[in-house]
Amino acid sequence: MPGQSPSDVIKPEVRQLSAYTLKHIKADVKLDQNENPYELPQELKEEVTRRVLARPWGRYPEFVPHSTTQALARYSGWREDGILIGNGSNELIMAGLSVILGKGRKAVIPQPTFTLYKLLSSVFEAQVTTVPLNASDFTFNVDEIEATAKDAAVTVICSPNNPTGGLLPAGSLERILKVTPGVVFLDEAYHEFSGQTALTLLPSNPNLIVLRTFSKAMSMAGLRFGYLMAHPEVAREIHKAKLPYNVNVFTLAAAEAVLERPNLVKEAVQRLIAERERVLAELRTRPDVEVFDSCTNFFLIRTMKRARDLFEALYDRGVLVRDVSSYPMLERTLRVSVGKPEENNRFLSALDRALETK
Amino acid sequence: MPGQSPSDVIKPEVRQLSAYTLKHIKADVKLDQNENPYELPQELKEEVTRRVLARPWGRYPEFVPHSTTQALARYSGWREDGILIGNGSNELIMAGLSVILGKGRKAVIPQPTFTLYKLLSSVFEAQVTTVPLNASDFTFNVDEIEATAKDAAVTVICSPNNPTGGLLPAGSLERILKVTPGVVFLDEAYHEFSGQTALTLLPSNPNLIVLRTFSKAMSMAGLRFGYLMAHPEVAREIHKAKLPYNVNVFTLAAAEAVLERPNLVKEAVQRLIAERERVLAELRTRPDVEVFDSCTNFFLIRTMKRARDLFEALYDRGVLVRDVSSYPMLERTLRVSVGKPEENNRFLSALDRALETK
Repeated sequence: MPGQSPSDVIKPEVRQLSAYTLKHIKADVKLDQNENPYELPQELKEEVTRRVLARPWGRYPEFVPHSTTQALARYSGWREDGILIGNGSNELIMAGLSVILGKGRKAVIPQPTFTLYKLLSSVFEAQVTTVPLNASDFTFNVDEIEATAKDAAVTVICSPNNPTGGLLPAGSLERILKVTPGVVFLDEAYHEFSGQTALTLLPSNPNLIVLRTFSKAMSMAGLRFGYLMAHPEVAREIHKAKLPYNVNVFTLAAAEAVLERPNLVKEAVQRLIAERERVLAELRTRPDVEVFDSCTNFFLIRTMKRARDLFEALYDRGVLVRDVSSYPMLERTLRVSVGKPEENNRFLSALDRALETK
Repeated sequence: MPGQSPSDVIKPEVRQLSAYTLKHIKADVKLDQNENPYELPQELKEEVTRRVLARPWGRYPEFVPHSTTQALARYSGWREDGILIGNGSNELIMAGLSVILGKGRKAVIPQPTFTLYKLLSSVFEAQVTTVPLNASDFTFNVDEIEATAKDAAVTVICSPNNPTGGLLPAGSLERILKVTPGVVFLDEAYHEFSGQTALTLLPSNPNLIVLRTFSKAMSMAGLRFGYLMAHPEVAREIHKAKLPYNVNVFTLAAAEAVLERPNLVKEAVQRLIAERERVLAELRTRPDVEVFDSCTNFFLIRTMKRARDLFEALYDRGVLVRDVSSYPMLERTLRVSVGKPEENNRFLSALDRALETK
């Protein structure tokens, strides 16, 4: 390779990308990754480790771990042969996009949204068309999505949307599914907090792919588990690009244990929703804080301060949130996860003090 | 999507692929996946679970788990900023290929070899050129690889090769690296059993990417862990397509624990190499069994029987091996992993009885 730079062989679409990155910094109150602050009960965790200790670690997981996919079929109500499991939903996003996107194929992605979709679509050399949310309230511009989806291979909808927290309005998904010749990736990472799902549309819409994760409501961000639901014929094609043995024996055991006790998660979700509403109501009494409704376990706030300054003022007081001000239209905006009541109170008082100082 | 089949939106390159698949069947003696039959010691496994129980499961792993990458840097001798970790090396193969391959880019892949490379190269719409091994002894056809690599974006070399067990001859890699304008993916999944590595070529060859796994010698197939070594500039580009938080907290803890005790693995490797040589010597005394040298923890045998018939005759006697007869040039051939001495003896006597019956 004489005279070349080592990265010259990398596709130009990739070279011009900035990497997805996040600095991991420690904080007393961690409200930056939309994690569930309620850990799984210690006895469940111990049971999982006992199960894992009872099986060999040197042997591959089952090629198709039916006990897990069956449990997911029961839990979700979708057919087992239309379910794929992944090392986080991220992996299924990658596999799903890889079998559809390539040079000359169009991906429609609202902005701002979960960054991985645009990043991977660019890696796959797709033609990415972004559709801005409505600037006033960060709702989806459904007319525009519908218009651009007319010749798209992939349309991405995160509903509820991250980092803005809003839902796609009722009836909109049906419209998009109807006009597009491609598929819709519906990312329901936060669906438990909204109480809504589009799963009922799956039987009659073979071009719908629904993604879910155990990293948010399910308290398993550290273990990496997600699943994809689609028509069996579509699942079969995505399965070809899904890596074999992609979920390890520990995560399989943990996912099954959690699925055996769905009430655990329901309780945590109810507490987080109640907290979200309490904190949002509190914030609405602050004249210099603009708050946005959320159907998730996080919310956006906008103030007159520079986002970076407010982020740091909060961090100086032990509260870590996410500075999302570099996203399109999110200037002066921070994303805050809903924590336990005492954590949320720490956030509220840190915010008040930070806003007092000029 | 009126009138369409749901999978019509899938790329034709993907639709025509057969899925990578493996039926998981139980057997007393499991010699089908090149796993290390020597489990990690129980006290190490318990220590790993204690470490994992001591940390939250609901929180994401660190964005860059430095304690793991530092341990790998010490273990391998390669610089930390040139190391990426993955959920098995499979994931790093996918990320690595995805940032280089696309329509109009050429991938050179010897045949037969580990199937994932060709499968994923096809998913990414690359022009795949296969180079058959030399039919007489399954060695690499280096001249042909060198010639075809002259305009390739990616050249894949699994050394030792799976499923044939042979090494790339000394000096060949340098030749290929010199002529190709692209990169070489050198898959060293089985390097511990050969005692050889091309890592020393990495400093002077920025177009070399070395892949390794913890699924074979390291006894961690069930946990999914692999790593990639490349020039920092190349690693940085591949990192863009590597999914965030791709290795879970349990696998990170297990990998670190194993890296703290490298002698554990060394001992198991020595035992398996000794067993491999013992079994191959035994087999060479059988007139109706053709055996092939191996630098790995598996070997090929060829007989006059149909591979499927011999596979089933062995399975009827409790011994599960891999029928590789559908690979190019591997008619009447089975792949057998090296197990513990008693497992290998079970295989030898099952083989003898199977070959007695006509």
